[in-house]
Amino acid sequence: MKPDQKYEEYKMLMGRIADLDFSNAVLGWDQQVYMPKNGAEGRGRQMATLSTLSHELFTSEKLESLLRSLNEDSTLDDSQRFNVQRSLKDVVRKKKYSEAFVSEMALTTSKAFGAWQEARSKRDFKIFEPLLSKIVELKRQEADFLGFEGHPYNALVEDYEPGLRVSKIDEIFDQVKRELFPFTREIATRFKPDTSFLTKTYPKSKQWEFSKRIIEKMGYDFESGRADDAPHPFCTTFAPGDVRITIRSAENEFNMMLFAAIHEAGHALYELGLPQEEHYGLPKGSALSMAFHESQSRFWENSVGRSFSFWKGQYATLQNLFPENLGAVSLESFYRGVNAVEPSFIRVEADELTYHAHIYIRYLIEKALLAKEIEVKDIPAFWNERYQEFLGIRPSHDGEGCLQDVHWSYGSFGYFPTYSFGSFYAAQLHASMKRDVPDFEGKIERGEFNSILKWLREKVHIHGKRYPTDDLLTRVTGEGLNVVHFMNYVREKYAQLK
Amino acid sequence: MKPDQKYEEYKMLMGRIADLDFSNAVLGWDQQVYMPKNGAEGRGRQMATLSTLSHELFTSEKLESLLRSLNEDSTLDDSQRFNVQRSLKDVVRKKKYSEAFVSEMALTTSKAFGAWQEARSKRDFKIFEPLLSKIVELKRQEADFLGFEGHPYNALVEDYEPGLRVSKIDEIFDQVKRELFPFTREIATRFKPDTSFLTKTYPKSKQWEFSKRIIEKMGYDFESGRADDAPHPFCTTFAPGDVRITIRSAENEFNMMLFAAIHEAGHALYELGLPQEEHYGLPKGSALSMAFHESQSRFWENSVGRSFSFWKGQYATLQNLFPENLGAVSLESFYRGVNAVEPSFIRVEADELTYHAHIYIRYLIEKALLAKEIEVKDIPAFWNERYQEFLGIRPSHDGEGCLQDVHWSYGSFGYFPTYSFGSFYAAQLHASMKRDVPDFEGKIERGEFNSILKWLREKVHIHGKRYPTDDLLTRVTGEGLNVVHFMNYVREKYAQLK
Repeated sequence: MKPDQKYEEYKMLMGRIADLDFSNAVLGWDQQVYMPKNGAEGRGRQMATLSTLSHELFTSEKLESLLRSLNEDSTLDDSQRFNVQRSLKDVVRKKKYSEAFVSEMALTTSKAFGAWQEARSKRDFKIFEPLLSKIVELKRQEADFLGFEGHPYNALVEDYEPGLRVSKIDEIFDQVKRELFPFTREIATRFKPDTSFLTKTYPKSKQWEFSKRIIEKMGYDFESGRADDAPHPFCTTFAPGDVRITIRSAENEFNMMLFAAIHEAGHALYELGLPQEEHYGLPKGSALSMAFHESQSRFWENSVGRSFSFWKGQYATLQNLFPENLGAVSLESFYRGVNAVEPSFIRVEADELTYHAHIYIRYLIEKALLAKEIEVKDIPAFWNERYQEFLGIRPSHDGEGCLQDVHWSYGSFGYFPTYSFGSFYAAQLHASMKRDVPDFEGKIERGEFNSILKWLREKVHIHGKRYPTDDLLTRVTGEGLNVVHFMNYVREKYAQLK
Repeated sequence: MKPDQKYEEYKMLMGRIADLDFSNAVLGWDQQVYMPKNGAEGRGRQMATLSTLSHELFTSEKLESLLRSLNEDSTLDDSQRFNVQRSLKDVVRKKKYSEAFVSEMALTTSKAFGAWQEARSKRDFKIFEPLLSKIVELKRQEADFLGFEGHPYNALVEDYEPGLRVSKIDEIFDQVKRELFPFTREIATRFKPDTSFLTKTYPKSKQWEFSKRIIEKMGYDFESGRADDAPHPFCTTFAPGDVRITIRSAENEFNMMLFAAIHEAGHALYELGLPQEEHYGLPKGSALSMAFHESQSRFWENSVGRSFSFWKGQYATLQNLFPENLGAVSLESFYRGVNAVEPSFIRVEADELTYHAHIYIRYLIEKALLAKEIEVKDIPAFWNERYQEFLGIRPSHDGEGCLQDVHWSYGSFGYFPTYSFGSFYAAQLHASMKRDVPDFEGKIERGEFNSILKWLREKVHIHGKRYPTDDLLTRVTGEGLNVVHFMNYVREKYAQLK
């Protein structure tokens, strides 16, 4: 086979794997948005089979020998060489997974999702506990067979932010505990805006009318995506031209739909900006990391969606939609209201400051579970005590406590820290963007988001996985991760909010 | 390997194939009900990949040698032996398909679906013609490599009603032309009921409220299924506990939603009654044939849903839902209205008599295309001439003519005759059921459908593919297909409709 043919053969194989994975994503999406109850068992086995087949292809001798041969090929261009090297690294890692493990994990998590749903609605952790215990046991096995230095958590974080280690996460969170947590307490104590208008009645269809208008302005195109109701908002990719989001809403909680829609659309715009057509199923065509993904969604949600400039431009429209709720509420009052800082139970509804305490608590639990310092049965008590410690509040039941997140039912351990890291990356990108994009605040105010999206596409999206996170941050912002940008951002913002 | 282990290994392999096929069904369903426009290309390649992988597994040496070995095993029970023999027969047939052919067909039909949609909405056959020509070319190749005696159409019908041949279809349709078509003309001429109330405004949500009530009474359970809007009503199975239907509606055409919902629910009840859990992905757990499938949907739609007893029981509820439309319409008038016989353009909205002319025309076209007596470009003229000949009407554009059906875009040739055969089987089953089920009409009137469903489950559903159609009909009704039952049914019904 000629080198060119080999690269084409590699692309074809990776394309098949992507086809299986994207198909599995469709099944997973349907499971959450439309599947009837009695479909769960069949869906579980089908998703397990697709995972197994994908795993078989990805760890086949054929692909590995092709990659080893291509890895010696000096005629590849930069993108090709990167794809080959990164795929080889991924194959070596994936080969550590046995077929039995992959299949058992898929089957377990599929059952766990149903159990989690039931447990959450009945506020009964016991319903979820046996399957979560099984998942934790599997994750411990996974860390062991993947191998790690230091903490077993390191083995799992690699899936969500390659290269990140517990030592770095601890270092960052030490700074967060030292600087952000006291700052958050200070703001929560002195800044008590009126938020009563946010819990008036906002009919779902009108909320969606406004949310849709905003995400379309951001550049989300409903010919390449759609939005459906789900118990947990998420973004999922089925094809280069089919990236969907889910939303949830409550008529008496204005914040729930809009900011989640902006957030998920931020994820979607990243996916739609990746060079997926040219590099279908290849590293260069794929998102850098979950943490970097989160930088995109957080940027749109907070740096844009919760900014004063944004509301200066959009508030009149919102007032016109809901005159009875907002007619007497000034722009300034509204802006203060959507930026209220108050310890609360539900992570996805938390403000941008207290949010990181939610993450830190989950991180502590995951780390302790992996290190066998606690067991699954200990989670509710551990959770509630940490909420008391870091947020000063204690959940009255597990539905608003440790049952609120879907992640563990998927077997996602090591994911949560990426939410905080994403925010920190977002603030760093935001600081650079303000320097690069002329009349930045004016554009946000006028809802002219295209030059912002263009900046993100050219600086970030187009590279896929090409550069490791700190390299990409350095290329774009001149330095690796530096939490000072996030602290500057929140200090500046809240200095003006009295 | 011991025989028991071999059978388990066979079940496992077939289960994997079923997992791929059911996954593909989810992708196909989503393609029609929710997929955004720009997802089409990716979806096409993904469905092609799943088809290819399923085909690879089904035609693998591993499965065939397992089947050949099991075929010699005398310790298998009746169901096991049947599953093995039937699977072996199917494998031999499927091995005639090359991987390239399967993949090309999947890719072509996926593109063709989009083209058909566009062509239909723009009423422009030219948009669909190139891809349909490609499909017909592929179907001719398919008939050739499958092999056939007599007409090439015989090779394709086998997928939808095994054992059925052009000679038999022609014989049946000769009788239909001789007896049903003149009878239809006579009824259409003398029976002119008022149907104006059917085209008043029936809000979609209230139509659905009534339709849902009826299909739930039939035994369709929304914990094992759901209904979504689609341009073409269909039923699709994703798992033993997840069988979905799609519906379409028009506010000014009462007939469109209800009868299609009953029809599709009839399909769904068949799927849900198959022994799918025990025989997941195996012949015994699968529907006998498309024609037999149609017997189930037609039975519910016509023998039940268009019967006088049914409306005697349900009409008051419908009147209460739509008092402004139906308050002044008597039960008898309504019954006459929904049984009006009138030549019309759209097959899925046709009455039970003219319906078979629609089918016959499609059959003639398919047969002529396969035999190269006509080409795709000739379809519109051929179609319109036959409508003139058999129904006395001529479509004013291809949207109400040869672009109305989705089937050809899927590559389904040989499918249409099963609609008529299904009706004929349904009438034959209906005649037996009336003898077997005490107080049959009274039960229909009271909406007590459970003993009817029980009869179908025990006599028909539970057997899956175990008996060939004529054998099953003989077991259940005492004879093979006999169109006299259908003619008796329509003669008796219309004798009372003046």
